Amino acid sequence: MSSATLRVELGSRGYPIHIGAGLIDRAELFAPIVSGRTAAIVTNDVVAPLYAERLERALASAGSRTLRIVLRDGEAFKTWESLNAIYDALLASQADRRTVLVALGGGVVGDLAGFAAATYQRGIAHLQVPTTLLAQVDSSVGGKTAINHPLGKNMIGAFHQPGAVIADTATLATLPPREFAAGLAEVVKYGAIRDRDFLAWIEANAERLHARDPEALAHAILCSCEIKAAIVAEDEREAGVRALLNFGHTFGHAIETGAGYGAWLHGEAVAAGMVMAAELSSVMGHLKKTEVSRVRDLLRRAGLPIKGPALAPERLMELMALDKKAAKGKTRFVLLESIGRAVLRGDVDEGRVREAIVAAAQ
Amino acid sequence: MSSATLRVELGSRGYPIHIGAGLIDRAELFAPIVSGRTAAIVTNDVVAPLYAERLERALASAGSRTLRIVLRDGEAFKTWESLNAIYDALLASQADRRTVLVALGGGVVGDLAGFAAATYQRGIAHLQVPTTLLAQVDSSVGGKTAINHPLGKNMIGAFHQPGAVIADTATLATLPPREFAAGLAEVVKYGAIRDRDFLAWIEANAERLHARDPEALAHAILCSCEIKAAIVAEDEREAGVRALLNFGHTFGHAIETGAGYGAWLHGEAVAAGMVMAAELSSVMGHLKKTEVSRVRDLLRRAGLPIKGPALAPERLMELMALDKKAAKGKTRFVLLESIGRAVLRGDVDEGRVREAIVAAAQ
Repeated sequence: MSSATLRVELGSRGYPIHIGAGLIDRAELFAPIVSGRTAAIVTNDVVAPLYAERLERALASAGSRTLRIVLRDGEAFKTWESLNAIYDALLASQADRRTVLVALGGGVVGDLAGFAAATYQRGIAHLQVPTTLLAQVDSSVGGKTAINHPLGKNMIGAFHQPGAVIADTATLATLPPREFAAGLAEVVKYGAIRDRDFLAWIEANAERLHARDPEALAHAILCSCEIKAAIVAEDEREAGVRALLNFGHTFGHAIETGAGYGAWLHGEAVAAGMVMAAELSSVMGHLKKTEVSRVRDLLRRAGLPIKGPALAPERLMELMALDKKAAKGKTRFVLLESIGRAVLRGDVDEGRVREAIVAAAQ
Repeated sequence: MSSATLRVELGSRGYPIHIGAGLIDRAELFAPIVSGRTAAIVTNDVVAPLYAERLERALASAGSRTLRIVLRDGEAFKTWESLNAIYDALLASQADRRTVLVALGGGVVGDLAGFAAATYQRGIAHLQVPTTLLAQVDSSVGGKTAINHPLGKNMIGAFHQPGAVIADTATLATLPPREFAAGLAEVVKYGAIRDRDFLAWIEANAERLHARDPEALAHAILCSCEIKAAIVAEDEREAGVRALLNFGHTFGHAIETGAGYGAWLHGEAVAAGMVMAAELSSVMGHLKKTEVSRVRDLLRRAGLPIKGPALAPERLMELMALDKKAAKGKTRFVLLESIGRAVLRGDVDEGRVREAIVAAAQ
């Protein structure tokens, strides 16, 4: 099978992203990092039965002693307890500083394994082997790692870049439909904020993507990773442009909280949030109504919710204010000036936000 | 009062070390980091009554809103629970990414606050305000942060450089004698591994240091920080030369464990460990017997133990092997080629180690 490789340019912390079908079996992609070392696979109880054995074979062929650490599946387990289970397993097997953690799974596994790697013995290497579309196009790239705290999501974490991202697109075949669609939300996001040609391509290929056509998927993942890699290279620690990746996320977080824990997938909330953010961009005089419709229609065709849960606009705004309060900053919105061009705005009037929420619910 | 400033040269992560009496009141030293921000003081229940109010006044004068987080005193509390108490306090007061943590206390407080700063919202700034001699000459400088895990000391942590170290030498007046002497062990270490003139100066001024003469203390702290800063600038992440700072520590860790939890202070164990390491250097044909005696005599005059606890050499070697096993590497020893010149050796025969332990016990 064909595969593609691109690079996150971060000097001595730079690394390759390999994308293609069947990469999980390709020992030569793992060898540069794990050869002669212990590779501790961190995964969950849903992914392990599907892919852990194949990965172990590849790692062994790459000259590595392997170890398997299986966590429970789900965002509810992105906690200190799971992190500590990783530490315990590493210490029990006397893992030293040359040990490499290998995150096999979605965003939760990637965030947990990445944070464990950032902090075990003051930092060890890790690899990301994402098996969900969301992780392949977004969370596995860029070095953001975290766990949740009872008082806030992703409140405890570190920036810790992986040694490589190895995205096996064939693993997406086993992904439940809702999770697959949730990943597509982030793909649409990249087009919307940074690349109008890519957005047009997604529009033209929405049915192929929905059908998980391998070639279309590989192209979408590659383009998404290229955009993410360029933004991360420009602004690793989110001092500026990296914040544009949060398009739809301010509304999205409020939706996730308002709908009740776990009711909406992150990507689903971001989809409905992007419609609100597009409406807000229109209310603020940036985006044309026809462009708002393009975003909305594309998300609908991707099988995503385009309206938020049945909550009063006031409730949603209250949740956004709470979110802002937790982080103690002003609420900043990522707005579209046009399809493919995003800006960060901190001076948005509450009345306009309300107007946008109402418009998005029509 | 006079004060001195030197710099840890680490490019964009570089920072000043200010040393002098009364610095805790000098708002202008804090202002560059905390002005217009929330400063969260992390301290313990022994240090807080002595210095927290004065520090709060200085921080307020520097234009900062202050917050006090008081932990329990002692190595036994360098745990996840204490770390979580810091996170809880920060989140409860809605601390954002611009918040600065200020570590006020000894090595435990510095390590905890530093690790909290490394991981709260993926990394915020922190200041070190060390109030023990050990912290002023060693642990506050260099960015090593950590907590203990039930299966090993300092196993979870990060490299996270402070924005400044502000060492008020007047705070040493309240330090219990054992803790003061324990700090002197690290001072002697710097001379032994890196600077024979400094070691000669310590020998000539041992009585003044023991009497806590402010001028002598300031000089000793400045020279120690200069050596540490130069080594850290050369090798931030301990890939090479920084390991020389572990002179006496391989034996020292075994003594700490063998004597039973908390019976020996870290500096006391390092002192007895340095005598063993000096004897080993002699056994290996590097160091003259007269030079071993200089190290031993100086440590004795500093009020430090020069013999380990009543343990069979075999037991001590077993504990070193366990320590090695936990970290899965080979036991490496820092040896002295002469006073002021240290080398790292990984090929030391067990018989020689035994011989050195026996010689140190004479």
